[in-house]
Amino acid sequence: MAKTYKVEGMTCGGCASSVEQAIKTAAAQASVDVQLEGGLVTVDGVDDDDLIRQAVEDAGFTYAGTA
Amino acid sequence: MAKTYKVEGMTCGGCASSVEQAIKTAAAQASVDVQLEGGLVTVDGVDDDDLIRQAVEDAGFTYAGTA
Repeated sequence: MAKTYKVEGMTCGGCASSVEQAIKTAAAQASVDVQLEGGLVTVDGVDDDDLIRQAVEDAGFTYAGTA
Repeated sequence: MAKTYKVEGMTCGGCASSVEQAIKTAAAQASVDVQLEGGLVTVDGVDDDDLIRQAVEDAGFTYAGTA
């Protein structure tokens, strides 16, 4: 089931791509959709909030919990 | 000794921060300086091009070799 997370610090398409790639690197099976304007990242195929948090933070963005 | 790499895909300050953070996550001792306009990333304290390449690519940007 898909989960949506709040991610702060994404200001352009490059940032959005970065978060998407970072999550896919951490979890190859993940399906990731980024809504840049709302700062929302929806992830399907992963049920591990900590893994998402770590990937987001390692990529230089701020994980702000589930939306 | 510092080395400078070409990195493609950085289009805003968020991208620059992302690349910097990704490299520092991969190598905590690294000193990283990003020149956004020129697409240049200067790294001091690391002598492992592959580690830099991997960090840049995992963060969703394109590693284009040493500058």
